[in-house]
Amino acid sequence: MRLEVINTGTELLLGNTVNTHLAFLGATLLPLGLRIGRQLTIPDGDIIGDAVRETVGRAEIVIVTGGLGPTSDDITRELIAELLGMRLELNVEVEEAIRVLLWRRKREMNEATRRQAMVPAGAQVLANAWGTAPGLYLPPGPVASAGGALSPHLFLLPGPPRELHPMVQEVMLPVLRKICEGRTVIRGMKNFRLANMGESQVAAAVEEDILALGGVELGYCARAGEVVVRVLGTPAQLAAAESILAAAFPQHYFTAQDHPLEFTVVDLLMRMGQTVATAESCTGGFIAHRMTNVPGCSAIFPRGLVTYANEAKTELLGVPAELIAQHGAVSAEVCGAMAAGCLASAGTDHALSVTGIAGPGGGSEAKPVGTVFVGLASRGREPVVEPHLFKVERETFKQLASQVALDLLRRRLSRMI
Amino acid sequence: MRLEVINTGTELLLGNTVNTHLAFLGATLLPLGLRIGRQLTIPDGDIIGDAVRETVGRAEIVIVTGGLGPTSDDITRELIAELLGMRLELNVEVEEAIRVLLWRRKREMNEATRRQAMVPAGAQVLANAWGTAPGLYLPPGPVASAGGALSPHLFLLPGPPRELHPMVQEVMLPVLRKICEGRTVIRGMKNFRLANMGESQVAAAVEEDILALGGVELGYCARAGEVVVRVLGTPAQLAAAESILAAAFPQHYFTAQDHPLEFTVVDLLMRMGQTVATAESCTGGFIAHRMTNVPGCSAIFPRGLVTYANEAKTELLGVPAELIAQHGAVSAEVCGAMAAGCLASAGTDHALSVTGIAGPGGGSEAKPVGTVFVGLASRGREPVVEPHLFKVERETFKQLASQVALDLLRRRLSRMI
Repeated sequence: MRLEVINTGTELLLGNTVNTHLAFLGATLLPLGLRIGRQLTIPDGDIIGDAVRETVGRAEIVIVTGGLGPTSDDITRELIAELLGMRLELNVEVEEAIRVLLWRRKREMNEATRRQAMVPAGAQVLANAWGTAPGLYLPPGPVASAGGALSPHLFLLPGPPRELHPMVQEVMLPVLRKICEGRTVIRGMKNFRLANMGESQVAAAVEEDILALGGVELGYCARAGEVVVRVLGTPAQLAAAESILAAAFPQHYFTAQDHPLEFTVVDLLMRMGQTVATAESCTGGFIAHRMTNVPGCSAIFPRGLVTYANEAKTELLGVPAELIAQHGAVSAEVCGAMAAGCLASAGTDHALSVTGIAGPGGGSEAKPVGTVFVGLASRGREPVVEPHLFKVERETFKQLASQVALDLLRRRLSRMI
Repeated sequence: MRLEVINTGTELLLGNTVNTHLAFLGATLLPLGLRIGRQLTIPDGDIIGDAVRETVGRAEIVIVTGGLGPTSDDITRELIAELLGMRLELNVEVEEAIRVLLWRRKREMNEATRRQAMVPAGAQVLANAWGTAPGLYLPPGPVASAGGALSPHLFLLPGPPRELHPMVQEVMLPVLRKICEGRTVIRGMKNFRLANMGESQVAAAVEEDILALGGVELGYCARAGEVVVRVLGTPAQLAAAESILAAAFPQHYFTAQDHPLEFTVVDLLMRMGQTVATAESCTGGFIAHRMTNVPGCSAIFPRGLVTYANEAKTELLGVPAELIAQHGAVSAEVCGAMAAGCLASAGTDHALSVTGIAGPGGGSEAKPVGTVFVGLASRGREPVVEPHLFKVERETFKQLASQVALDLLRRRLSRMI
């Protein structure tokens, strides 16, 4: 079925907020056999009426996000009701739900919050247990200004992600599933991830073989520190594509699951019953943050140290002050000592260390901004220190440095180093 | 001038990648007096021709991202040239730049990478020093299939953010500035941020007074742990709006700069010459990561500890094992002891601590998933421990918990607690 998404929000167009709804909806709807054909972002205000009218006769399902809240720029509900010629009525159940939620948050209802209980007659309320504005499902109906053509199945959802996400999962999907029943073809998709590779390298090596499987759809996405190869096809084709990639890049291919590298690393550690600690300088806790994004990581990640200052490296990791004085805090020697010291004090099976210059300040001719060393110490194995140079801004630098560090551990756990 | 953005990329619609280009472009173009009127996301493939044709006669400037790379799904260049009736020619300078870049990355040129040097005759190359695919500027020209109407000023940019960002800043903006000269009205915008407030509370308290300034544009955006109040107007109006907000919420209003809370905290510490260390359990390094996202933070943040395991809390922070056995690791008592121990061992002016249950596992009836304590110890001041309950998924939980912790420090530095 032809599906489109309309995101309203002036803040999205002014650059105050990144639109995360599209990616969330795309990933959530695919298992129903639904693909988003186009997505439009428009400012708050009366253009929403035009935007929905444009989809009449082109889309069968339209999902609109935002503009249902209590403030003056939230007018999606009113404008769509007007477009479809529906009257707004106070829904007492919604009003009561809002009152209870506000009471739990120790706030009182005012005219603005009560307005969220106005529902177009004929619409189905999508209950919102996570915020005050309910979602709405409006079944297809004639649109006078579109020559009487039927409007698509219309879903109106609240803008805040922490309300929209659970509402989609728990309330909208059951409604959508009924609409789609027997009308969509479910096709498999896998996103194969390769660490620290270039997009064109991967394509040159595998594209011909994967396309030779016949009828598959192939795409690539280059990210900081990884390439994602997307394949749509039958289960057998997806398995064959995976074999092709794994054979071409045995050192780099790490997962067909939709998750970043830290999930693979934590999973390997859990299955092997091994633990890791981290000693970070320039990544400043980002590796620990990535590790602890994985539920259950406490079993394999007892501690992490962010040793920004030289004194912290000496006191917490036992890095000799003379070593720092001799080679500098950003050096292979100090990186190795950080990992060794971390392993000894944490008593883990592995210890990762990172030291480098994230910038924008702090660079020199010998060690420019972007210089970074990643180290790994493991019980009963040779220690490793790798130098890298990432000439990118601070945030990407942290991403790339954490990626090579995590990949060092992945390769060790997979017995590649 | 009427400006639209078209982002191509099947991965954006399938949910593999979040579209960060729109927010970046919106924020970057505003100082030129340019506002994005609509933004469209479409899949890779031949729909790009239709999408650009739709903008003819409606937009004056159109920015297209993606589809310029070396792989088989990158066909933006070819389709737009076809739409505008332009011939593609090999540009030897671009070819040489690609060859040099590949050589620096220790790769060789192949047919796929060479294709990126094909440039429509009459287009201006926007040099790409950060990747292989150059950007292109195509001046307005007649579009046969649109009844001979003129196409907008067309900018084609590469998809990877770390290529697009510097190219926009250094190469596209100068071209755009010339086009806009004397044709746009530059209006000020401020995003006022309030920590840990509800959107409708803020609106109820200030909206009337801010709108009474006359001719201002007002919007709100609710985020995890903060509300952003966006005001567009003259410099005098923006100053007046700030006064209204600061008077209404003296404890919550923290910045008119476009930056998150950690920048305000680091700035306060730097100006006061004070330091902080962190002791994190459930936030798992996220507070340290946020602090170290601020350039220059090494002056005020010497160390951070991620003490996930109870032993780490005892060994690194001196939290008595009996205290943990008596009250549990997630308790006000342990949170206070973590902050006190961190302050003593790090020798900083302040120490922040967090302990809680991020979930999905680990909750109990007495302490459900979402329970969290944040603590602050400071030299010569009373320690503080605050309990909170955030019933949200893991990632938002870390965001909210880190936000209340950082805000605790902000309020202490501002002498509010």
